[in-house]
Amino acid sequence: MKKLNVGLIGAGFMAKAHAMAYATMPMFFWPAPAIPVRKVIADITEEGAKIAAERFGFEKYTSDWRKIIEDPEIDIVDIVTPNDTHAEIAIAAAKAGKHIFCEKPIARTSEEAKKMYEAVTNAGVKNMLAFNYRRTPAVALAKKFIEEGAIGKILNFRGTYLQDWSADPSSPLSWRFQKSIAGLGTLGDIGTHVIDIARYLVGEFDEVVSMMNTYITERPIQEGVVDKLGTVKLEGSVKKGPVDVDDEASFMIKFKNGAVGSIEATRNGWGRNNFLTFEIHGEKGSIFFNYERRDELQVYFADDPVDRRGFRTIYTGPAHPYGEALWPIPALGIGYGETKIIECHDFIKSIIEDVEASPNFEDGYRISLICDAVVKSAEEKRWVKVDFGK
Amino acid sequence: MKKLNVGLIGAGFMAKAHAMAYATMPMFFWPAPAIPVRKVIADITEEGAKIAAERFGFEKYTSDWRKIIEDPEIDIVDIVTPNDTHAEIAIAAAKAGKHIFCEKPIARTSEEAKKMYEAVTNAGVKNMLAFNYRRTPAVALAKKFIEEGAIGKILNFRGTYLQDWSADPSSPLSWRFQKSIAGLGTLGDIGTHVIDIARYLVGEFDEVVSMMNTYITERPIQEGVVDKLGTVKLEGSVKKGPVDVDDEASFMIKFKNGAVGSIEATRNGWGRNNFLTFEIHGEKGSIFFNYERRDELQVYFADDPVDRRGFRTIYTGPAHPYGEALWPIPALGIGYGETKIIECHDFIKSIIEDVEASPNFEDGYRISLICDAVVKSAEEKRWVKVDFGK
Amino acid sequence: MKKLNVGLIGAGFMAKAHAMAYATMPMFFWPAPAIPVRKVIADITEEGAKIAAERFGFEKYTSDWRKIIEDPEIDIVDIVTPNDTHAEIAIAAAKAGKHIFCEKPIARTSEEAKKMYEAVTNAGVKNMLAFNYRRTPAVALAKKFIEEGAIGKILNFRGTYLQDWSADPSSPLSWRFQKSIAGLGTLGDIGTHVIDIARYLVGEFDEVVSMMNTYITERPIQEGVVDKLGTVKLEGSVKKGPVDVDDEASFMIKFKNGAVGSIEATRNGWGRNNFLTFEIHGEKGSIFFNYERRDELQVYFADDPVDRRGFRTIYTGPAHPYGEALWPIPALGIGYGETKIIECHDFIKSIIEDVEASPNFEDGYRISLICDAVVKSAEEKRWVKVDFGK
Amino acid sequence: MKKLNVGLIGAGFMAKAHAMAYATMPMFFWPAPAIPVRKVIADITEEGAKIAAERFGFEKYTSDWRKIIEDPEIDIVDIVTPNDTHAEIAIAAAKAGKHIFCEKPIARTSEEAKKMYEAVTNAGVKNMLAFNYRRTPAVALAKKFIEEGAIGKILNFRGTYLQDWSADPSSPLSWRFQKSIAGLGTLGDIGTHVIDIARYLVGEFDEVVSMMNTYITERPIQEGVVDKLGTVKLEGSVKKGPVDVDDEASFMIKFKNGAVGSIEATRNGWGRNNFLTFEIHGEKGSIFFNYERRDELQVYFADDPVDRRGFRTIYTGPAHPYGEALWPIPALGIGYGETKIIECHDFIKSIIEDVEASPNFEDGYRISLICDAVVKSAEEKRWVKVDFGK
Repeated sequence: MKKLNVGLIGAGFMAKAHAMAYATMPMFFWPAPAIPVRKVIADITEEGAKIAAERFGFEKYTSDWRKIIEDPEIDIVDIVTPNDTHAEIAIAAAKAGKHIFCEKPIARTSEEAKKMYEAVTNAGVKNMLAFNYRRTPAVALAKKFIEEGAIGKILNFRGTYLQDWSADPSSPLSWRFQKSIAGLGTLGDIGTHVIDIARYLVGEFDEVVSMMNTYITERPIQEGVVDKLGTVKLEGSVKKGPVDVDDEASFMIKFKNGAVGSIEATRNGWGRNNFLTFEIHGEKGSIFFNYERRDELQVYFADDPVDRRGFRTIYTGPAHPYGEALWPIPALGIGYGETKIIECHDFIKSIIEDVEASPNFEDGYRISLICDAVVKSAEEKRWVKVDFGK
Repeated sequence: MKKLNVGLIGAGFMAKAHAMAYATMPMFFWPAPAIPVRKVIADITEEGAKIAAERFGFEKYTSDWRKIIEDPEIDIVDIVTPNDTHAEIAIAAAKAGKHIFCEKPIARTSEEAKKMYEAVTNAGVKNMLAFNYRRTPAVALAKKFIEEGAIGKILNFRGTYLQDWSADPSSPLSWRFQKSIAGLGTLGDIGTHVIDIARYLVGEFDEVVSMMNTYITERPIQEGVVDKLGTVKLEGSVKKGPVDVDDEASFMIKFKNGAVGSIEATRNGWGRNNFLTFEIHGEKGSIFFNYERRDELQVYFADDPVDRRGFRTIYTGPAHPYGEALWPIPALGIGYGETKIIECHDFIKSIIEDVEASPNFEDGYRISLICDAVVKSAEEKRWVKVDFGK
Repeated sequence: MKKLNVGLIGAGFMAKAHAMAYATMPMFFWPAPAIPVRKVIADITEEGAKIAAERFGFEKYTSDWRKIIEDPEIDIVDIVTPNDTHAEIAIAAAKAGKHIFCEKPIARTSEEAKKMYEAVTNAGVKNMLAFNYRRTPAVALAKKFIEEGAIGKILNFRGTYLQDWSADPSSPLSWRFQKSIAGLGTLGDIGTHVIDIARYLVGEFDEVVSMMNTYITERPIQEGVVDKLGTVKLEGSVKKGPVDVDDEASFMIKFKNGAVGSIEATRNGWGRNNFLTFEIHGEKGSIFFNYERRDELQVYFADDPVDRRGFRTIYTGPAHPYGEALWPIPALGIGYGETKIIECHDFIKSIIEDVEASPNFEDGYRISLICDAVVKSAEEKRWVKVDFGK
Repeated sequence: MKKLNVGLIGAGFMAKAHAMAYATMPMFFWPAPAIPVRKVIADITEEGAKIAAERFGFEKYTSDWRKIIEDPEIDIVDIVTPNDTHAEIAIAAAKAGKHIFCEKPIARTSEEAKKMYEAVTNAGVKNMLAFNYRRTPAVALAKKFIEEGAIGKILNFRGTYLQDWSADPSSPLSWRFQKSIAGLGTLGDIGTHVIDIARYLVGEFDEVVSMMNTYITERPIQEGVVDKLGTVKLEGSVKKGPVDVDDEASFMIKFKNGAVGSIEATRNGWGRNNFLTFEIHGEKGSIFFNYERRDELQVYFADDPVDRRGFRTIYTGPAHPYGEALWPIPALGIGYGETKIIECHDFIKSIIEDVEASPNFEDGYRISLICDAVVKSAEEKRWVKVDFGK
């Protein structure tokens, strides 16, 4: 069985998720398209990298990510570092002919994204962005129903992504609140997941009108490099630094195919943890999904007999997308891990079968341009057409 | 105990709801502020009015609503006719010195609404609009929590009102789809309920940006005057007439107090029956309500201990607003009827205590102006400031 | 239109519910089978009765219920007094040839119940017990699906009725905790509702095995006759009296048709307000109902396509039982009132059409015998066959 | 960092779950108590074992499980074979001084279980049974709340485990339907999970009374050894074999500490996939859990202010048991995998720290004795005291 050597750049929470996926993907998808080998991991310090290698099961480690790019053994470069490093690493990796798997959002800006897209296009390497939520089996099932025409022509999409891990002003100033590192705030971090799903299920964006807000304008500065996602409270006489990105972005959408929609993304939605939801109204039915109850897809078919019509709560399992590979009965349960395992499989499959991965850097670039339109709309208080170039 | 004589104009579904309220309000609220007497009911035909009187328990009937206005015995004129008649009846009733209870929306246009508002102001009569949903105990509880500061300063309001009774193109062309009678479509019929709740819970509107759509542009013409709310299908070779109002209105809001929000109202949301919901994020907590599960209010308090934080599902009962008057334990159950009974009580109380009712015609007029802004925004594709005049 | 004169005996919470039903039934069910006239109401004191008459809209009042029995004008005697008076009143009413509508449970003991059953049988009067929950439209829809064979042969029934209004030891010693008045505790008060539903949906009981518990063995004595259902706390140095009925009854069931089941009824289920639920597994599907969300019935059809199978949440409305009479679209909302209005309609219809009402005193007597078996099983710690006599 | 060599016996669905846990446990729990090494895997055939080794990442493979027992390198023997082999393998492994991790139920009979328990006791090896559901973070949180006294003394426990993967008569006769292999049917397969949770949260069993049913008495014989858990339909003229175990077991419980309870386990609950639920009523509050929504624990605290009381839906995360090790924010999502990863960690920790694992073979033996009582009660139709010996 073919093997693909992976170099993982980054050693935080996302490294755990990706390492888990590489280690277990063939256990689920068997025969696997290829077996990923955890070859080398990079962290900022030699000591950190050494620990990461032991923890995440990599053969080698380095504190210099360029070593990975230069390593002829490496087939896949996987980027799980903060957003400010994506472009540099990805472009170098593309030039070195590596396939690239990159965490979302693609980069800080659409300019960076464009260069990354051009680099992978020129290099002819496979590339994928880790918008993992579209790979939740229930979301893939929604896609299937839509493609089968089960809910008819789509009229309306309403998406939300609500979190509260940083709703407390005493949660730390992680890099996610700093424009120089993150590029965007909530819009880039979680809003892009909903944009990805909207494009996946409905189609390309045409115009947007938006509001963006920053509710907590300064936060306590944390020591060290660990990104605790705000679950730590820093109280007392801590030093604070400015937040220069958005806490919340809300916008309405006109899709190119005539459908309309709205997206609300916030990190100040107390009580909502990972409340990624969408509701889609079609001419013949509706679909509702809430990631917090991710085993379930709710679907309404208007052509059911009138006294038997109601949203069906479908628990995904072997009868649904990816189901054969996962657990043998529904509701044994999909966790975050499973979404990454599926993602890993699909990317490796795209390499082996030499087909485009999805969503790829082009999708990431387009999402970046949509974000540009959202930001512009908020600043100029008007509808803005997304400029995808020619 | 004081009695107030009621003249009810209209004999459709809403007449049932109002008659039920008059008949039973003192059973619930005791001692009642006054006992409403079902004196006279008007319908279009003499025969219809006669049947309505027997069915709804009125002492007299008439096919000429002006008789009610002229009747010196009548204290309250209650208007449950289609929107095109509200202004004429209400203005006449005001001139005759009657207190006025009027179904929503106030009128077809803000011009009509303004005249109605001026008429009741000049006449000094009590006036109320039947935005009954704000009187759901759970909504009143939300109001109480907000006023107590339990969720802190409000940041964001997201309201929806989704229905599907007319999502089928073969459902009939009721008056609700005709601009000359209804004024507005979904926006006026159900969108105004959410606007009312948003004003009640958050505050006055400042600006809106909107999208409006008409998905089903013609519908089968139905015989007779009965408004079946589209639950009948008219199939085969029926004659069709044009729909000239909106099926769907979605808009974003900036409130005067700095909060933001969004509202989506549609009659094409398959599977959603009376899906009037709102979610409010405050600095210290969140509130969620769904009228389809109207006994419940979901509240999240950020200052709960970190391992015990979660949305509380509170079933309203004796410990909550209106609870003493209703049923002795929670979840015996609030239905549509109870919302109208409470409404009836509150209006009669306002008359007896000689205080302003709420929401009154001024509120209705303001909501009408907000609708004007929503329509204008959709037409001109831009943010529109609500013009409340000086 | 025919009229039926009602004499209502009792003036507490249930009097409100029944008076509401009489006042409004024809508004919903039109043309009504007959129009009930609120003729006379009885309470313990003259003063109480006078107030009740005004509040509940009765023409006359009395402090002597026998006056109602003797009144030749009265067609229907409606009994909403505590359980210890049911037998005496009902038997007298039967002898006087009145139709009888009686609150549940039928009586304190099966001996009383038997006499009541014999009395109405001998008198040939219509009789009904107010097990209103089976008249919730969603429960009636469950009945319809079962009769249509939609879920196949029934295998298993699991019912619960959980409340918490008396879970606090400081809630008062209402008559519901005194055997001499109530007969049974939780089993009689709410357990019988689930037994009624189980018999309605599944069939007759054969055997039971049970556990019964009294958790709070004494409670504060309350002043006055008002039954506050424990929502009041009596704290401090109040005098206490003994509780001599059950707080909780749990039992397993073998039905005569081979199905099995279980019922759990408690008043110590903190957080459950009126949690009357059932889940039924059949050979071809399942049904779930929770009265706290009474507009909804959840149904699963095993013959749906495998990738589209899931519990459907059906909101009852015009397409379902009683729906034409109630509200024009689903989820406008069924409250406690609507269940009583339907009940009132069905009883009056049985009188007019001269057919047996259901559930009638025979059903009540049988339920009483089932309760006997439950009690005996708990005492003797063994399976007990229900003795329905020959 | 210390390493422990694992020999895994069995290569089906459970092998996947266990292999995943060994591969990823240190990624989550870091520093790990020890690093498990996937040393050798056994399957029935050499070819099967070879594939399993590649798929699940084991260094070696064998078709003779005794080779693993004899291998001096092996520290942990992990048994994921059908029930009929547990005793023989476990006893041999104990004699060889291996620590033993065994899938549930412990064995086919309490006699086998007793021998296993004695074997590990005599050998002094660590032993654990894979009742993984008690390790769901939300279940562990329930345990914490109970231990803190947050819901007071426990009165009542109601557990269910409802599945439907074999509700269709055309699903195959897997070994789980054959007494000679499985020992018990639903009771052993899933009922024991609820018994484990009941013992964990409430306490030891004293008496039970039960009903057991086999609804589908013969099933199509499947070719091959793969256990498809009934998700395949075998239709047409297939040969059938008899089912000689229970499809459903329902029983009531008296716990030694005075609490009562009930458990219903079925594989004929259409629409329920992995519906492992419990509701616990205490003197001061209640807890509800449903594994199908396993990120959530619902808790009600009776001492909340009366107008703010309601079940809290707590999403488990970093603030809750195991939370630091898992994902950084709640609702990223716990799947089946996470429960096994936690289980793996806890067993390895018990080895390293030289403390008893829980639940261990003694627990398994006791659960087996409880099952004996349940079976006996169903056969003899009476309450049966669990005989735990001296």
